[in-house]
Amino acid sequence: MIGIGAGDPEQLTLQAVRALRDTDVFFLLDKGEVKADLTGLRRDLLDAHVPRGTYRIVEARDPDRDRSAGGAAYSPAVGDWRSARAGIYERLIAGELGEEETGAFLVWGDPALYDSTLGILQEVLERGEVGFAYDVVPGISSVSSLVARHRTGLNRVARPVQITTGRRLAEGFPQGVDDVVVMLDAHQAFLRYADQDIDIYWGAYLGTPDEILESGPIAEAAPRIAALRAEARERKGWIMDTYLLRRDPGER
Amino acid sequence: MIGIGAGDPEQLTLQAVRALRDTDVFFLLDKGEVKADLTGLRRDLLDAHVPRGTYRIVEARDPDRDRSAGGAAYSPAVGDWRSARAGIYERLIAGELGEEETGAFLVWGDPALYDSTLGILQEVLERGEVGFAYDVVPGISSVSSLVARHRTGLNRVARPVQITTGRRLAEGFPQGVDDVVVMLDAHQAFLRYADQDIDIYWGAYLGTPDEILESGPIAEAAPRIAALRAEARERKGWIMDTYLLRRDPGER
Ligand SMILES: C[S@@+](CC[C@H](N)C(=O)[O-])C[C@H]1O[C@@H](n2cnc3c(N)ncnc32)[C@H](O)[C@@H]1O
Ligand SMILES: C[S@@+](CC[C@H](N)C(=O)[O-])C[C@H]1O[C@@H](n2cnc3c(N)ncnc32)[C@H](O)[C@@H]1O
Repeated sequence: MIGIGAGDPEQLTLQAVRALRDTDVFFLLDKGEVKADLTGLRRDLLDAHVPRGTYRIVEARDPDRDRSAGGAAYSPAVGDWRSARAGIYERLIAGELGEEETGAFLVWGDPALYDSTLGILQEVLERGEVGFAYDVVPGISSVSSLVARHRTGLNRVARPVQITTGRRLAEGFPQGVDDVVVMLDAHQAFLRYADQDIDIYWGAYLGTPDEILESGPIAEAAPRIAALRAEARERKGWIMDTYLLRRDPGER
Repeated sequence: MIGIGAGDPEQLTLQAVRALRDTDVFFLLDKGEVKADLTGLRRDLLDAHVPRGTYRIVEARDPDRDRSAGGAAYSPAVGDWRSARAGIYERLIAGELGEEETGAFLVWGDPALYDSTLGILQEVLERGEVGFAYDVVPGISSVSSLVARHRTGLNRVARPVQITTGRRLAEGFPQGVDDVVVMLDAHQAFLRYADQDIDIYWGAYLGTPDEILESGPIAEAAPRIAALRAEARERKGWIMDTYLLRRDPGER
């Protein structure tokens, strides 16, 4: 599993480049969403860093997540979805990879954050039909990318930071923390907090040529973000955004 | 500010390598602790990636943090310490960097996590004595490194994760989260939770030749970690470790 960064091809680490070059077969899973752009970026990375003719690409269609079941959430249907994917991954590994060969999954951002590939590979191993050894190459997450672009930190001195989802934030501001990063937010949960003493640091399509940044006191920034977000989503057909909420920003 | 990863020189990103090559002056601040090893690693990175004769190195002594004031905590004395550092950084930038030149601070891990360099540069700018533009290059944090080496994720599906300090953890398990990463823990705060249903994933000197990993149900793993930690600290004179606590690990 190779973390490839969250948009900027220069965010690859030297370790990731080496791992790409040591790979015989790349498994590219097309999410069947409008994210063909993202599959394109993976192909560009290979073209840029690995000599042609030294690897094979195996493409497969990822099953669609049943979003209807849980609305914005993906939690309820996630078990079935994971099993369906485990079946596909199992067939790919058994059918496309020779005994002594090395396969790779190119994972967006950091494989450790809201990514299912690791869980699926573990499920494949538990099924016991195929055996393999595997390693994880960490990547620059969209979270690191977001705060670097805004030139701010994740945490304040000696204080905690939480990373959570839009759905969780919609249920309430997390307890015991004032710095909160939100991912997977399809419904702009931040709007609910627009009357509070919070600074927001928002970014969409981070690291790509379409990158958009916006920040400021949430009361002023939230309507700007809502407008930018709607416009970008309309134009590109999909959006990928994340943000940091900093409560009581006057405290250092 | 260039994030250089948390120990493994191969964790540099291509963006960081490019930034290194675009730098005229590197400011290396010696913490005056037993961490000369870490300054050594920075020099090795430069040797490996930047042609000699294309840059200068300026070394300075970082003022010691007054640890006596707060015991394990570094919070109380941090304001003074930061001002003292701002004075040093101001003099370095004013005195050592030409008008058209580019300077760089090499920041351990990801500059966004528990690092003061960004705050200090902002304080230097606020003082108004020197002016400059600056950018942040994100890096692989010890947090990403930790979970990659343990081949686990930071969060479970659709759930939050918190990153906090040993001092905070000593005050109680954070509310509203079951996955907690702990940094800056000089006193093994995890020992307090050894009777709970928690899995721990621990790592020291991650990414370096001295790396140590240990994991398992906390009741069994905690004594092993305490022993490994004491032995390593004794041998090397200092330790750098971090860990993930996963409460109710049976839940996926
Ligand atoms: C399934 S998660 C995967 C996260 C990924 N593993 C990472 O480390 O960034 C997808 C979410 O990550 C965030 N995201 C990923 N890439 C992004 C980018 N380039 N710009 C903004 N947000 C991004 C968005 O919040 C999106 O909903
Ligand atoms: C001042 S903070 C800096 C963190 C850094 N900016 C990062 O992204 O990892 C220092 C703490 O980071 C953790 N740390 C940094 N490097 C580490 C390594 N190589 N192995 C284990 N822990 C590390 C330890 O918890 C240490 O107390």
